Amino acid sequence: MPLPPEIRYCNVCGDDVAFTVPSGDNRERHVCQGCGEIQYQNPKIVAGCVPVWGDRILLCRRAIEPRFGLWTVPAGFMENHETVEEGAMRETREEACAGMQNVRLYGVYSLPRISQVYVMFLGDLLSEDGFGIGAESLEVRLFGAEEIPWEDLAFPVVEATLRRYLAEREHAGFSIVLDDL
Amino acid sequence: MPLPPEIRYCNVCGDDVAFTVPSGDNRERHVCQGCGEIQYQNPKIVAGCVPVWGDRILLCRRAIEPRFGLWTVPAGFMENHETVEEGAMRETREEACAGMQNVRLYGVYSLPRISQVYVMFLGDLLSEDGFGIGAESLEVRLFGAEEIPWEDLAFPVVEATLRRYLAEREHAGFSIVLDDL
Repeated sequence: MPLPPEIRYCNVCGDDVAFTVPSGDNRERHVCQGCGEIQYQNPKIVAGCVPVWGDRILLCRRAIEPRFGLWTVPAGFMENHETVEEGAMRETREEACAGMQNVRLYGVYSLPRISQVYVMFLGDLLSEDGFGIGAESLEVRLFGAEEIPWEDLAFPVVEATLRRYLAEREHAGFSIVLDDL
Repeated sequence: MPLPPEIRYCNVCGDDVAFTVPSGDNRERHVCQGCGEIQYQNPKIVAGCVPVWGDRILLCRRAIEPRFGLWTVPAGFMENHETVEEGAMRETREEACAGMQNVRLYGVYSLPRISQVYVMFLGDLLSEDGFGIGAESLEVRLFGAEEIPWEDLAFPVVEATLRRYLAEREHAGFSIVLDDL
């Protein structure tokens, strides 16, 4: 994953930014040397979903970087002015052209190295063929447990979520996990 | 809550930014007219905790805006390179000088109007007097259920979390909720 670009200029006034501890703070921030505006950098939320039909799981093969050509569950950066559940449903629509029902929280995974938090849901597809190939996907299909392309999954959080789902569905019910990767 | 400042200049090259739909995207973004960098705006995570000692709850009276002088549970913007649980524990240390154990996920609340997601935890204080007044607090104290200052709470999400906690502890156990406010 490429490093994010350096923050050199102020979004508000265009003046130079220094990396320094603002007054009253306890850590270095990007502070505008003109207007004083602090350019805060915070973790991003990735909203994702495991869409299920019976005993099969819907996966998408990525048509975009990073991890072009590898498989993932529908997931992407949450947008302003939506709920995290709406974000997961939007990503599932965009990447897999799929609607869902019975969408429920399934996991909160922190990825501190890349400053992301994945909020993962489970959802039921509306029909067996109620999906298609979204603009960011090369291929979208349902996989049985024995067909999951473990060696070709895009991200560790996808593998962690799928392994937990397959293990838990053998037993009583589904938990909600908090974990880091 | 004041509106965030307008994004007018590029963080990377300092050139002018236009609010337009980038190629391959489906919504308006702040796009640099010089280098093309997109200045993405995404929801922020607020990591918070309900610190508990026996049947009492630790609350802080805010020494900062917004909601100066009103009561809250320890909570604040998650920082890069920490987990959401670490963020909640850091905020509890900073605002209430308190360490915790048995910290567990308690709720994910979307606030789409202000593009925030609160991730709330429950935690047990390490001792009855294991807290103090952090730099962002005017006052920090333990409240019994009948003492909660309902009329002077800082944010709806604080009230929602405390009401749920007090209701649930009467019964079998604690759930993890997904909700919007």
